[in-house]
Amino acid sequence: MNIRFFNARILTMEEGKDIFQGELWVKGDRISFVGTGDEAKEYQKAHPEKAPSWDREIDCEQNLLMPGFKDAHTHSAMTLMRSKADDLPLQDWLNTQIFPIEARMTAEDIYHLSKIAIMEYLTSGITAVFEMYLTPYSVADSFRDCGMRCVQTSCVNNFSQSVEMLEDYYRDLNGRDEYNSFILGVHAEYTCSKELLEKASKLVHKYKAPFWAHLSETKSEVEECRERYGMSPVGFMDSLGLFDYGGGGYHLVWTDDKDMEIMKKRGLYAVTNPGSNSKLASGIAPIARYLEKGIPVAIGTDGPASNNCLDMFREMFLTTALGKLRDMDASSIDAAQVLKMATVNGAHAMGLEDADILASGKLADIVMLDMQQPNMQPVNNIVKNIVYSASKSNVAMTMIGGIIRYERGSFNIGANPGDIYRKAEEISKRLYS
Amino acid sequence: MNIRFFNARILTMEEGKDIFQGELWVKGDRISFVGTGDEAKEYQKAHPEKAPSWDREIDCEQNLLMPGFKDAHTHSAMTLMRSKADDLPLQDWLNTQIFPIEARMTAEDIYHLSKIAIMEYLTSGITAVFEMYLTPYSVADSFRDCGMRCVQTSCVNNFSQSVEMLEDYYRDLNGRDEYNSFILGVHAEYTCSKELLEKASKLVHKYKAPFWAHLSETKSEVEECRERYGMSPVGFMDSLGLFDYGGGGYHLVWTDDKDMEIMKKRGLYAVTNPGSNSKLASGIAPIARYLEKGIPVAIGTDGPASNNCLDMFREMFLTTALGKLRDMDASSIDAAQVLKMATVNGAHAMGLEDADILASGKLADIVMLDMQQPNMQPVNNIVKNIVYSASKSNVAMTMIGGIIRYERGSFNIGANPGDIYRKAEEISKRLYS
Repeated sequence: MNIRFFNARILTMEEGKDIFQGELWVKGDRISFVGTGDEAKEYQKAHPEKAPSWDREIDCEQNLLMPGFKDAHTHSAMTLMRSKADDLPLQDWLNTQIFPIEARMTAEDIYHLSKIAIMEYLTSGITAVFEMYLTPYSVADSFRDCGMRCVQTSCVNNFSQSVEMLEDYYRDLNGRDEYNSFILGVHAEYTCSKELLEKASKLVHKYKAPFWAHLSETKSEVEECRERYGMSPVGFMDSLGLFDYGGGGYHLVWTDDKDMEIMKKRGLYAVTNPGSNSKLASGIAPIARYLEKGIPVAIGTDGPASNNCLDMFREMFLTTALGKLRDMDASSIDAAQVLKMATVNGAHAMGLEDADILASGKLADIVMLDMQQPNMQPVNNIVKNIVYSASKSNVAMTMIGGIIRYERGSFNIGANPGDIYRKAEEISKRLYS
Repeated sequence: MNIRFFNARILTMEEGKDIFQGELWVKGDRISFVGTGDEAKEYQKAHPEKAPSWDREIDCEQNLLMPGFKDAHTHSAMTLMRSKADDLPLQDWLNTQIFPIEARMTAEDIYHLSKIAIMEYLTSGITAVFEMYLTPYSVADSFRDCGMRCVQTSCVNNFSQSVEMLEDYYRDLNGRDEYNSFILGVHAEYTCSKELLEKASKLVHKYKAPFWAHLSETKSEVEECRERYGMSPVGFMDSLGLFDYGGGGYHLVWTDDKDMEIMKKRGLYAVTNPGSNSKLASGIAPIARYLEKGIPVAIGTDGPASNNCLDMFREMFLTTALGKLRDMDASSIDAAQVLKMATVNGAHAMGLEDADILASGKLADIVMLDMQQPNMQPVNNIVKNIVYSASKSNVAMTMIGGIIRYERGSFNIGANPGDIYRKAEEISKRLYS
């Protein structure tokens, strides 16, 4: 498909580039041109072959095109437990509400339940997620069938999956199709034995690959790790060589200077999950400190059982609002930094180097935000409006790999929303009976 | 107009009543019937005159009807400064960004700028607001012309308005039209002299009326009040007799046991503004303590310059999420409590006794929430879904006084959205030039 967007405001998220008026062309799964209207005319003259007959021309009516959001930590199929397991601290929540139900979920259940999450990501302008769940193959099928980008890591731990399975996922899911990829990782220190982590480290070194895990989410997790090993989760995992090729951690709420030194030295990404961390009363991550130290931060929703919604607008506001509260400083963590976390940094953390900004040759993972909604008016400062004021109601379109998957309430994901909901209700009835 | 909603899920917010399937009838500005389908048939037989020919019958398709949200603290016309004055602490924000611009705003500017806020309230299912701004008459005109409910108090302080004007507002705006009412109040202790507050207290006693103000929003506000008077803002205002007939305060972040004793004794409402309090790094209000002590809590967005959006879904999530963080207790402040704050408690705080729940005879201030969006699926627990997971994108309809003012993206407010935005841009250009 050849698609031309014109009469748009464009926020490329390229460093130092301001929002401008112009057009954007999509050819196949890539962006073939981004520029002003005048530049488009000149370019068309010089490269007539790059502006072929359009399959669709979209008048953006001064709405905003920007890179899709990257949800850098989630567990999609936990839609099943949305609003089923609230108002409990993390360990109770896991042990009494989550693990017993998860034990009964099949790969097929997870395939279907992931689709509700995929729909929700699309309504929030999310074009790729960093996923961790129980059955990576059926998760990958779900994302492929819906046409949404998914970078997975595994949740290997003492009780499910294994390092051997981790290697299989890594080999099978990278390059399998255009939507899926896989990065090495495990669930968390507190669910993995030292032996398991040592085996995982061998894999890291075999593939010279980055490594990820839930890290320092709660205070007690860190205290217990210190009791076991005399080190924090970051320090302990680093001591096993797991971060020798970079990677990062999810949550990273309870870190100290020494952790941050390691993170900086290893080039680790900190993925923050403020919705989940507040709802589970885990704490507020030291985002401003990470920024000061040059540790890149990305943003994730976490799964819908702990959050409970999959909405990057809420997470962006929470990232800065909680950071300001933590530091008791209203100038802490400004909107431009947050928007970069939610787009460019997320893409880089997830290894999606081609899905970070809007530029010729990059993947056409694009959202259009409706500026004609009252929450974006008057148009004083678009970047601040997006972070402080926008919501799902502003998402007019979500395109992934050049295909429009969501447009003003309608989904194009190879399945009917009503059927997806019915299937989820069936699964819920069966698993909760 | 006679409107019949059928095939609905209905959450009346009546104490102890569960969500049920049924229908709801509207006659003029009131609800004339709420009940199950069977009850509707029986009622129709017994009272044929109450089910006249319908002007419109709406198949709710299993979507949810519930009372409209009450935004219990806002400054609507501050849409002008949305995203213009961010990342500053409260006092700098007021003195350098807000007061100088406000000094140049006319009553007509405020009339127009309020309309953008009114549109935004409607998109968030808000049917009434508790407003405080500079020109109460033009604010009232704006709400009346759009057909939205507005309870105002004044922002009398040492520099603008006066206690004489306060009395005028009180007499003129109560009963002037069906959309507007007025409650006594001033801006805050830190902007009002003792003499001014003593005059205000005479008014309170003359009319035996509740009294409102910004109260204990920041730590320094409380410290400075203690230095001046040896009392907290709550204690000092109470010592002047201002709360002898009840009322309440906005923000109430920095209160102690003694303040809470006064609040309890005087029957004061605490209106919490978590979005604003976090963005301005003012702190987290002790909501769980208020609940323990039986102090009723309502929720407000505060104005769009400090928040920056007017969205009760975000405020509801923040109320519980910040409360859980403050107490480091994930079980603190559950969803049902929050939903009551955002509806019933707000109505009662604002003196809208007839707009609190869905019941025959009550005002038809109703929202319909779209349950067919992915963020509400599967339908495990609707109340939790609303508080933890819903967003503006779920608001399918907002009705005020029996008139549908917003329906799936379209506004019915006596003016064209494009004209409202253009007017605001004009005002912005003039005032910021």
